[in-house]
Amino acid sequence: MNQKRTALRDEIVRIAARCFRDQGYRAATLDTIAAKAGISKVTLYNYVSGKEDLLCLVFEQAISTYRTGLRQIIEQRLPADETLRRLIRHQVTTLAGNLPFLTVFFSEEGALPPRVAKRVVQEKRACDRAIKAVVRDGIARGRLRDFPPTLVVFALLGMCNWLYKWYRPTGGLAPDQVAGIFVDLLERGYLRRDGEDPGAILAGLRRIEARMAALGKRSSRTGGPKTARRAR
Amino acid sequence: MNQKRTALRDEIVRIAARCFRDQGYRAATLDTIAAKAGISKVTLYNYVSGKEDLLCLVFEQAISTYRTGLRQIIEQRLPADETLRRLIRHQVTTLAGNLPFLTVFFSEEGALPPRVAKRVVQEKRACDRAIKAVVRDGIARGRLRDFPPTLVVFALLGMCNWLYKWYRPTGGLAPDQVAGIFVDLLERGYLRRDGEDPGAILAGLRRIEARMAALGKRSSRTGGPKTARRAR
Repeated sequence: MNQKRTALRDEIVRIAARCFRDQGYRAATLDTIAAKAGISKVTLYNYVSGKEDLLCLVFEQAISTYRTGLRQIIEQRLPADETLRRLIRHQVTTLAGNLPFLTVFFSEEGALPPRVAKRVVQEKRACDRAIKAVVRDGIARGRLRDFPPTLVVFALLGMCNWLYKWYRPTGGLAPDQVAGIFVDLLERGYLRRDGEDPGAILAGLRRIEARMAALGKRSSRTGGPKTARRAR
Repeated sequence: MNQKRTALRDEIVRIAARCFRDQGYRAATLDTIAAKAGISKVTLYNYVSGKEDLLCLVFEQAISTYRTGLRQIIEQRLPADETLRRLIRHQVTTLAGNLPFLTVFFSEEGALPPRVAKRVVQEKRACDRAIKAVVRDGIARGRLRDFPPTLVVFALLGMCNWLYKWYRPTGGLAPDQVAGIFVDLLERGYLRRDGEDPGAILAGLRRIEARMAALGKRSSRTGGPKTARRAR
């Protein structure tokens, strides 16, 4: 396919994703898609065999964008917590940057022809398994707490994927801000734990050290034993 | 409506929810629903005016089940962290216990008549606002970390609601186990933080205190000043 042809096909798929998202796959028509692409329906048929074909292309594009990023992150073989940090960022930014594609991906699976639907399920499972392996490794190496790995994967994916239900690019938060907050929330939780706050404990340590220093000084002034002086 | 009539209507709505979930709203037929309920289509029409009416009833039931529990929890006016703990449990168990209803609720909103769709959006927003108020209060009272409340709400809901995509009652984990893990994950995160482990730091504090006590004793034995003795 030459460059111009590829560009137009990509544009048609992008428009289809938006139409399927806005009107629902069943209600959307090839007439609307052709009109929005500024081409005739005859020309449209030069690129796709029909509406179902377009839906398959939207799914293909959604999966391939997502999977490419996922693989690149996992192949770096970083520590599990850093891999998950990058995966959360990837999940949020891919979703926020391709909302029509991912919305169709999460909502219209039932409209796919069975053969394609089966392949989509397999692709999704492969991605889930790849993330699960990261979580399992993180637990084994003591970087992550010991939760059932499957549940961590679905918790993380659910938190991020739910964006398609509420995220609007015109809202107050940029995708990388959302990702940063989700990373923090997933890593450390929302509970404020002053009683266990390392900062509060460190402040206590400093107070004790100050008292120790004072004790040491007094001890040396009053001619305390050499061991005490050495302890200073 | 008499008791027997109400029972049959509820059963029809339950069957409809399952059919809409399994086949998709558009593909499901009243014939199948009537057959599964063991009644004729004529009898079915004594209970509902058509498929769209049934879809509205499924949504109504899903919302009312969810909202009743939500209100009961919030009306108890417990501390925010405890309220959220109960909300997460409510979210997970309601979803797991009413999978067909909630799956239709999350997937078929586009098939609702506009008037009902509008009301559903309003109901959802009201629920989101109620949870957001809890989060905001928790942050104001210092029980929760200072995250944007909206994001905490969507993070929590996303993690829990995603169950409709993956949870199978026949799987290994009971709903209350999933809920317990989600509470722990949302409250404290998945990161293992040995370096910041409060227990380890407190142990260090105790070692220092013991050394201080020893220092204090020596200082008093060697005739340290009264202030040092008092410090013990």
